[in-house]
Amino acid sequence: MLNIDEAFAHCAALSRASLGTTAPNPNVSAAIYSPAGELISDGAHDRRVSPEHAEVIALKSAGKAANGATLVVSLEPCNHVGATGPCVDAIIGANIAKVIYAVKDPNPIAAGGAERLAAAGITVEFVESFMLSDIQGAWLHRISTGRPYFIWKVATTLDGFMAADDGSSQWISSPESRDDVQILRSHSDAILTGTGTVLADNPTLQARIDGAAQPLRVVVGERDIPADFNINNEGSQTLLLQSRDLNKMVQALSDRDINQVLVEAGPTLGTALLKAGIIDEILIYQAPTLLGSGKSWLQDLGIETLAGAQRLNLISSQQLASDIKSRYRVEKR
Amino acid sequence: MLNIDEAFAHCAALSRASLGTTAPNPNVSAAIYSPAGELISDGAHDRRVSPEHAEVIALKSAGKAANGATLVVSLEPCNHVGATGPCVDAIIGANIAKVIYAVKDPNPIAAGGAERLAAAGITVEFVESFMLSDIQGAWLHRISTGRPYFIWKVATTLDGFMAADDGSSQWISSPESRDDVQILRSHSDAILTGTGTVLADNPTLQARIDGAAQPLRVVVGERDIPADFNINNEGSQTLLLQSRDLNKMVQALSDRDINQVLVEAGPTLGTALLKAGIIDEILIYQAPTLLGSGKSWLQDLGIETLAGAQRLNLISSQQLASDIKSRYRVEKR
Repeated sequence: MLNIDEAFAHCAALSRASLGTTAPNPNVSAAIYSPAGELISDGAHDRRVSPEHAEVIALKSAGKAANGATLVVSLEPCNHVGATGPCVDAIIGANIAKVIYAVKDPNPIAAGGAERLAAAGITVEFVESFMLSDIQGAWLHRISTGRPYFIWKVATTLDGFMAADDGSSQWISSPESRDDVQILRSHSDAILTGTGTVLADNPTLQARIDGAAQPLRVVVGERDIPADFNINNEGSQTLLLQSRDLNKMVQALSDRDINQVLVEAGPTLGTALLKAGIIDEILIYQAPTLLGSGKSWLQDLGIETLAGAQRLNLISSQQLASDIKSRYRVEKR
Repeated sequence: MLNIDEAFAHCAALSRASLGTTAPNPNVSAAIYSPAGELISDGAHDRRVSPEHAEVIALKSAGKAANGATLVVSLEPCNHVGATGPCVDAIIGANIAKVIYAVKDPNPIAAGGAERLAAAGITVEFVESFMLSDIQGAWLHRISTGRPYFIWKVATTLDGFMAADDGSSQWISSPESRDDVQILRSHSDAILTGTGTVLADNPTLQARIDGAAQPLRVVVGERDIPADFNINNEGSQTLLLQSRDLNKMVQALSDRDINQVLVEAGPTLGTALLKAGIIDEILIYQAPTLLGSGKSWLQDLGIETLAGAQRLNLISSQQLASDIKSRYRVEKR
């Protein structure tokens, strides 16, 4: 018998590995199981490798074994001709007996896949998975709102400082947290920062992982960046937006069909993005240290009283070496 | 067969339930198991009920069934005559075959219990348990340092504020966190606060739990507290120390053989205690909210650069409703 929790965990591992490689598409994964519940084949979309969707990769790999088998897929199979033909046709053609999908496709252009499969006589089940919708969250957000999902990454002391009085800030968080940030970069489609940070720190803003997908580097602000700065080096592209207009920035990234933007910025730009309602998630690494004074990671929000506080929703929290890594969804005001 | 992890978990539950009721003694728990590994009896020290130690309570409850049985105990059995006779004599007299203890007794007056048991022909095993030493941590700290264990409890927004600009602070943390604080109060032997907090908030500083042990209320500072303030109400005792001398305060609580002091104070007193090296643990409830400005939970520590940051050691972190509750040991400087 097919164990759906194990099948979803298998898909989740595949989808995570292809995060940052699929925009403008979702990072879909699929696995095909025999009627006895044994894994036959799997696949994940990765535009660096091929335009083919996860379902088609898994079906091709299964060959004739797909006949009468069950397809487990992280997203409702698509029903439209984009860069490739509709996945539903491939599934019907392979004589799959049953399809289990974890997330409904909110995309009006591609939706209707489940109905078409059922009409073709395939048993179709929707089994909701928070894990798989969370992994595809940035794409789901872009499809439903028309703009990318913005994650503000913060490294702070336990009392809320990202730098000491003398400006020293390297390194607040543990080596394990900093490795985690490299993964986060490779999972994002763009990294956003300000000219102030670029001029002060001369960062590379690349994922320091061999073979990793490299996000687009996006710099906002009006100051000039010298050509020999690291932000202009090879290995990934850079978009310089010489403007302080944050809505223009959002539009530029929306136009590029970017799913996920990682904000690696100082408190000025970060706070401005938060106040403008652009930040969707705050990802915070809290180190086990206290400074008592220094540069706070967040600036004045114009909030006078506790009842007016900006609310967040805790997504997850975990210990990462001696740091605590927590993810919060920002409640829109 | 005896499952030692289960036996320790059983003892831990008993010890937790008697926290705050045993000072100046440790909160020891004991359980007696048959040779087949079945629980015969158990006991925990609770001075409100009886001066008897955990081992003696469990032995009396077991009666003749203690003959040839195994005693599991959270602390090495004592070897001295205090309010009661030595536990080792009771264990030997009951013909216990084997003793397993989880923490060595660092108390020079009472130690040597394991040796005396072994000399009497009893099999003695030391199986170290972090869980059980953590539960007895305040007492262990007092025995090894001569002064109580100070826990600073903090409720803060994610960006480090304990009140908004207008002073509003009720309630930063969730109802679940506030219930947790009531348990923490009942587990402490004293609650320490300043005259400023008492005059501003008029708190009761009692554990609002039916039948709970009530800690001594300790107030430091030079201002007078009106007699009709809640701090002077019935149900628990209050010690007014009309002084700002923190070392005198520590001495006064040490003289009273207090194991654990819960600090419920504003940033001025809390920071002063931290700078004076008196705080042993910071227990922080972080709410999923942002203020951007307000009253920070920590004041200036005189730290200029990141390398000089006050280091903490993460003991544990858990999600409590929408808050994150974390415990940190303060590294002595």
